[in-house]
Amino acid sequence: MILTVTLNAALDVTYLVDRLRPHTSHRVDTTHRRAGGKGVNVSRVLAALGRETVVTGLVGGPTGDLLRADLATAGLRDELLTVAGESRRTLTVVSREDGDATVFNQPGPPVAPREWAAFRAHFTRLAGHAEVVVLSGSVPPGLPADVYGRLLSTARAAGVPTVLDTGGTALRAALPARPDVVKPNAAELAAATGTPATDTAAAVDTLRAAGARSVVASLGPAGLRAHTPDGAWRAVPPEHLGGNPTGAGDACVAALAAGLADGRPWPDVLRDAVALSAAAVVCPVAGDVDTTTYRRLRTAVRLEDLHAPDTHR
Amino acid sequence: MILTVTLNAALDVTYLVDRLRPHTSHRVDTTHRRAGGKGVNVSRVLAALGRETVVTGLVGGPTGDLLRADLATAGLRDELLTVAGESRRTLTVVSREDGDATVFNQPGPPVAPREWAAFRAHFTRLAGHAEVVVLSGSVPPGLPADVYGRLLSTARAAGVPTVLDTGGTALRAALPARPDVVKPNAAELAAATGTPATDTAAAVDTLRAAGARSVVASLGPAGLRAHTPDGAWRAVPPEHLGGNPTGAGDACVAALAAGLADGRPWPDVLRDAVALSAAAVVCPVAGDVDTTTYRRLRTAVRLEDLHAPDTHR
Repeated sequence: MILTVTLNAALDVTYLVDRLRPHTSHRVDTTHRRAGGKGVNVSRVLAALGRETVVTGLVGGPTGDLLRADLATAGLRDELLTVAGESRRTLTVVSREDGDATVFNQPGPPVAPREWAAFRAHFTRLAGHAEVVVLSGSVPPGLPADVYGRLLSTARAAGVPTVLDTGGTALRAALPARPDVVKPNAAELAAATGTPATDTAAAVDTLRAAGARSVVASLGPAGLRAHTPDGAWRAVPPEHLGGNPTGAGDACVAALAAGLADGRPWPDVLRDAVALSAAAVVCPVAGDVDTTTYRRLRTAVRLEDLHAPDTHR
Repeated sequence: MILTVTLNAALDVTYLVDRLRPHTSHRVDTTHRRAGGKGVNVSRVLAALGRETVVTGLVGGPTGDLLRADLATAGLRDELLTVAGESRRTLTVVSREDGDATVFNQPGPPVAPREWAAFRAHFTRLAGHAEVVVLSGSVPPGLPADVYGRLLSTARAAGVPTVLDTGGTALRAALPARPDVVKPNAAELAAATGTPATDTAAAVDTLRAAGARSVVASLGPAGLRAHTPDGAWRAVPPEHLGGNPTGAGDACVAALAAGLADGRPWPDVLRDAVALSAAAVVCPVAGDVDTTTYRRLRTAVRLEDLHAPDTHR
C-alpha cells in the first residue's frame, strides 16, 4: 500500500455565491464539505486508480470528526491519529459568475510534543507496511522545523521510498534527510532556493545539491521538469485544458508514488504524472480525477530528453 | 424572564485576514466562533444588563453542538430544540487593513413538519413563563410562511407581549397576528411596504395598518422613529459613534423588550434603545454592548415628539 501523511488535514468547505463582492453580505446557496489536505487528495487519486492506500496524519475536534466521517464515506482507509486541538477548515468561495475561487486557509491546531511522539511511533508502524510513503502539505504549529526530515529518516530506515510535497521552511529543513522525490511547484521552487522563477533548472539542481535524490518540478500548463539520477526530462501536456488547478499537484504526486511503487522507468512515470495532473484540472474539486482524460492523454504527453549531466547521483 | 426565539440560530464565525483580495489565497490568522443569530444576541445584551433571559429556537448537528457549548460558556439559559438538520454558520471576513466586513450567510437547515409541531408545543410551555417574547431573524427552509404569526398568536393567548424583528415575507405574513412591537430597519421597512426608503413615516404607518401595534424603525446613525398608540417620536443619538453596526439592531430590540417587560413609558424606552444601540456599535462583535457608553448616553439621547395623530390605536 501507499501511505500518505497529512499532518495538517483539513475539512475542505466550498461556498457557492453569485459573485464575491468585498464588504457586502452574500447568500451562500450551496455548501460542499469534504476531507482534504494534500495527502488526503493524493490518496483519493490513488484509490480512483485502484491502488491500495492508507491515510495518516493528525486530526482533532468536531471538525476532525466530520473529516473522518467523510473518509469513511469515500472508502479511504483512515489511520489518522487524534490530537487535542481542532482540525482546521479551508474555505473556498467560488463565484458562480466567473468560476473563480477565493481561498481562506487556517493554520491548523497546535500539536503538543507528546502528540508528536505518539505520531512518530504510529508512523513507524505504518511505514513498515508501505511500498511508498508520501509526505504532503503544510505543518501545523508546534511541530519541530525538521518534522519531515525525521519522518523521511524513519521511512529510509524501513527501506521505503519517499515522495515529499511541501514548501518553505518545511521543505528546506527536510532535504538533508534525502527524500527520494521532491515535487515543488514553481513558486515553492523559487521560494526554497532563492533562485529566480525563470531559472527552473538551476533551482532544481539546488534542491538536489541540498539532498533531494530526484526533483520533479510542476510548472502548471508547461508540465513537469524532472532531474533524476537516471536522466533529466521535460514532460509537456499535449493540449491546454482549462479548469481548476488546485488538485493538479496532488494528482501528480499520486502518479509519482504509484510509479515509484512499481519501479517503472522515469519517462513512463512522467507521462502518467502529466496526464493525471491534466485529468485533475478538468475536475472542479481537488482530489478528483477524470479517468477518461487520464487514459486519453497518457500516451500523448510530449517527453523531451534534456541530457543533463547527473552530478548528484 | 424574557424569552428570545431564534429559529435560524447560527454559529457566527469571524476570520481575520490582512486584506480581502478576491480570487487569491488568504492566510487566516485568527478565527473566532460563537453562538449567534439575532435572538441569541438579544439574550446576550439582556444578560449583560442583568435581565433574566432564556434562549429558544432550533439547532442541530455538530455545528449546533458547538453553538450550545458556547451558550453554556456564556451562561445563557439554553432551551433550544434539537432538529435533524445541521445548524448554519455565518462567516464574517474582517480585513485588518480597513476593518471592513464581508459576510457569508447560509440559509439554515430544513425543518420537518414534525419538528415544527414539536417546537410549537415547546414554545407554548416556555411562553407561559415569559414576561415578553422576542421573535428575531430569518426563518429556516421548510417552515410555513406565517411561522411568526402562529408564535405571536400563542404568545397573545398566554397574555405575553411580543417584539418582532424580521424582514421580507416573514414580516409581512406575521402582521395580521398583531405583534405589539415591530422593529424593522430602513431596508426592511422599504422592502416590506414597497414605500421609498425616504418616506419612513408612511412606511411605518403601512405596517401599523397591516397589524403592528407599535413600530420602532431603526435608521442607523439617524436613530429611531417610533409610532405607537401613545404617541410618535424620533430619538436621535447625541453623538456619532463609529464601529460595527451589526449588533445595533439586536441591542435596540433588547432595550424594547426590557422596557415592555417593565411597562415603562415610550420616551424612556426609546432613549434606552438608542443608547444601547450606540453601545453595541462601539463593540467589534455583535451581541456585545459597552455598558459605560450605554450609561453615558442614555440621558443624553435627543427625543423629538412628532405629535402624530394615532389612527391605529
